[in-house]
This record gives sequence, structure tokens and C-alpha cells, in this order.
Amino acid sequence: MESVLVVGVGFMGGSFAKALRKHGFKGKIYGYDINPESIAKAKTLGVIDEGTTNLPEVKDFNLSLVMLSSPVRTFEGIARELKKYISSEAVVTDQGSVKGELVYRLEEILGSRYVGGHPIAGTERSGVEHSIAELYEGKKVILTPTERTDVKALGLVREIWEELGGEVEYMTPELHDYVFGIVSHLPHAVAFALVDTLIKLSKPDVDLFKYPGGGFKDFTRIAKSDPVMWRDIFLANKENVLLAIEGFINSLRELERLIRGEKEEELTEFLREVKTKRMEID
Amino acid sequence: MESVLVVGVGFMGGSFAKALRKHGFKGKIYGYDINPESIAKAKTLGVIDEGTTNLPEVKDFNLSLVMLSSPVRTFEGIARELKKYISSEAVVTDQGSVKGELVYRLEEILGSRYVGGHPIAGTERSGVEHSIAELYEGKKVILTPTERTDVKALGLVREIWEELGGEVEYMTPELHDYVFGIVSHLPHAVAFALVDTLIKLSKPDVDLFKYPGGGFKDFTRIAKSDPVMWRDIFLANKENVLLAIEGFINSLRELERLIRGEKEEELTEFLREVKTKRMEID
Repeated sequence: MESVLVVGVGFMGGSFAKALRKHGFKGKIYGYDINPESIAKAKTLGVIDEGTTNLPEVKDFNLSLVMLSSPVRTFEGIARELKKYISSEAVVTDQGSVKGELVYRLEEILGSRYVGGHPIAGTERSGVEHSIAELYEGKKVILTPTERTDVKALGLVREIWEELGGEVEYMTPELHDYVFGIVSHLPHAVAFALVDTLIKLSKPDVDLFKYPGGGFKDFTRIAKSDPVMWRDIFLANKENVLLAIEGFINSLRELERLIRGEKEEELTEFLREVKTKRMEID
Repeated sequence: MESVLVVGVGFMGGSFAKALRKHGFKGKIYGYDINPESIAKAKTLGVIDEGTTNLPEVKDFNLSLVMLSSPVRTFEGIARELKKYISSEAVVTDQGSVKGELVYRLEEILGSRYVGGHPIAGTERSGVEHSIAELYEGKKVILTPTERTDVKALGLVREIWEELGGEVEYMTPELHDYVFGIVSHLPHAVAFALVDTLIKLSKPDVDLFKYPGGGFKDFTRIAKSDPVMWRDIFLANKENVLLAIEGFINSLRELERLIRGEKEEELTEFLREVKTKRMEID
């Protein structure tokens, strides 16, 4: 690989750049971001070699790989522009949390050299200053090749992730969105809603946020995640997120029914089954 | 204080005993539990000096203090028996997560020397073998005195908790249950329901528990908590828990409405307000 462009120089983009460098990548690492401050910070911190807020400039970068790391709903617009300024050989991939239809739309624009990807890694933090070179080590990385995906492009992307310590797994774009709509997007929706509940149920003389001991704090850590990023994820994976919320409300209604009816045995059974299942994943 | 009896020698009972010892208590520490194994483990580990599974035996223990640490719905039955075997001078308090009416019922049985308490500390672990001497350090301890509470008994209980590093705060029993129904019992109900959702939405060829990366794992740690303890808490604080679940479903429905209608600005605003509020408690 000659050189790499990271689109969106935030927590994820910065982590990818740092990880590449840590694992011995010798080429240039460029950054593109709409925010000049992010570029300046990333250069000062040595996360990227050069950066720009002007996409046409990337035509001089001799790029082998582009890693889209901005909020998912910016991908299409950026891909349409980007295409004009990169060689047809350059492989394009991403770190977005939503795949599904978006993968086909990006293929439509970029052709077979686009490879959909999603490292199952991250924190509630945002900003390049928090990025972590070791972010992907031992983490699953889902790639979502389609019938159309170029085998060499897929091979390159897979190789890079494995080099960075990721454990690559393939899924269809549709299965990816079903699975992560439930195991990741739903917990975020729930955490956001839970904090909102405390806002709504606080009273002038009762500030519920004064008592964050009882499980609430750990539980809602992910509600500190970036609002724009999560708005984009919820909207881009709308159908699965709504399906997951419905499924969750059904489970909560069932629990509510057992509590309301004081169904001691069924309630114990419900909690015991859940505990057992949760213990299995540790 | 002469000697202390811990009722229920599990994680909380064990932690209280260890904390007392760590902070220089020189008297005897006794344990009562219905499970002989818990008593044996606690003795072997040096957490208690002596223990029994036979409540009448406590009459020989010359007790100054009894700390109820078993599941909350056992308190009344135990208090009724206990009363026969302890001096009328012995102070009785508890570490239960529910107060409310239970406080008045225990006062009915034990009189003014009963002091309701709830240290806002704990983990998802259970069992005396996981108990921690430092559990209460820097943690809030809610005491719920009533008009009837003996001032000396209250003073003693307060002094002990402060000695163990707790920060004592008073609440009415009713306010306690409103607050902790929302900030603690609700998050537990939500975590249990979330794990249940993954059970229900898994398919023969899609095991959702294989992908615990995206926030789910941290988020549902508390679903590993003891099922019987939580059944008791949910039932003992039923009205507030149901109210909290309703409030939470309202917040989740609001979020759902914004996603379904693709209300970009309102959705961003919702997430941003929540993030800001959540950041304030760190």
C-alpha cells in the first residue's frame, strides 16, 4: 500500500490511523474532515501526516485505501465526490455501524472495490484526542461482502484488519443490521431513554441525578456517546432499531406483568433464565 | 458495642462484617443464615467468629446490634422471631434496598430501636466469598428515620456507617423508595428485560449472544445479579417500580416516535440533552 486516507478524523478515524502506524505501516496517512480543528489536532498529535478540509485535494495523495470513519449518513455524499479524485484501483472501506442498504448504495457509486466493514470496538468517547492504537486488538470486525465485491479488495481489507489484531467475520449486510440493531443500537436507545426518564421523573425538590449509585451510572455510560453519530445510526438502521425496541418493550411488559401480578415463581424463573444466559457470555 | 449479629451471611452481610473488623471493631461478630454452607464458608474465611442456622441460639450472643442483610422480604418474619431472643436494648438495622412501608412494619414489630438503612453500594456478585471490606468507602448510606425512631439508636447506626467510610443521608421511607425505584430498581428491570430480548429475538441460525461487543455486555452486567434478591426488591417496591417502568416506556416511545418520523432535529436535541445531563454526574 502506498498511502491511506482517513475520512473523518475523530475517535474511530484516529484509532485506525494510530493502529496502522503501530503495526508498521510505512506509507503516508492522510486525513480529511470538514472540521479544520480536527485536522489540526490530528496533525499536532502525529495521528496523520497531512490533512485537508478540501476533498478535491486528495487527488494528489496517490491513495491505495480510503477508510470512511465519519457518521454513516455522510458516506454516500462523500463517496460521490471522492470517486472523482481517487484512482479506480483505490480500495474503499468503512468503519460504520450500519450496513444493509447503504452497502448496495455505496457499491452503486464506488463499484466492486468498496468493502463494507464494522469493527465491533469503540467507547462512548469521541474526538481524535481520545483515539487508541490498540482499539481493535482481539475485537470482532464484521465485513459484509456482496456477490459483487472484488475478491482482491476484500482480501486486502481482511488482511489489514487481521494485522491490526481484529478477528474478521463475514455477514450479509442485512444480517449485520439485524444483529447490531439488537445487540448494539437497542442498548444505546435504552440508555438514552433511561437518562431521559430520570430527567422527566425528577421533581423540583427531588433531583434523581444526585443518586447515581444504584447501577444507573455504569448502565448509562453509553448515553454519553456522540448525539449526531447516534442519530445517524438510529435513522440509517431505522427498521431494525424499531423492531428491536418493540421486542424490548414486549420483554419489559412481560416483566411488568409478573411484578404487577406478584407471580413469584414465574418472576424468579424469568430472572434466573436471564442471569444464566448473561453469565454464559463472560 | 459488645457484639454484632449479621443476618444473611452473603455478599452484603459479609462485606459489613469485614468492614467492621477492618475498622477496628473488637467485639464478636456472629452470623445467622438459613444456609449452613454460607455459615461454614464465612467462618472458614474468618468473616464471622461464630454462626448458626438456628435463630433461638442468638439469645446467648449478648448482642448490641443486628444488621439484617438477607433478601428484603425475609425481614418481617425474621424480626418477629428475632425479637424473642435479643435484649430490648439491641439496635436493629438493615441493608435492604427497599424501605417504604416495610420500615413501619418493622417498627411495629421491633419498636423504636429499629433504624432503616440502605448503603448505595454493591455489585452484581453474590456470596460471602466475594464480600469486600472497602465496599462502603465514599458511598452514600441512606437512613430512613421516622418520628418514632429512637435518637440514640439512630446516632449509633449513623456513627457506625461513618466509621466504615459511608456518607450518611436521611430520607423518608417513601422518598427513598421513589428515588431508588427509579435510579436503581428500574435499571435492573431494564437490564433483565434487555437480556430477555436477545433470547427472544435470537433465531436457530442467529445466536445474538455471539456478538456482545456493541455496548451490550457492560450494559447488562447487572442482569447477573441474584434473581431471588431482585424478585424480592421488585415485589417489595412494586408501586414505584411499575411507575418507573411506565415513565421509562414513555421516554422510549418518544425516542421511537422521533426515529420512526425521522425527526432529525428533535432527535439530535433529545440525544444531546440526555448526553449533557449524563455528563454532569461524572
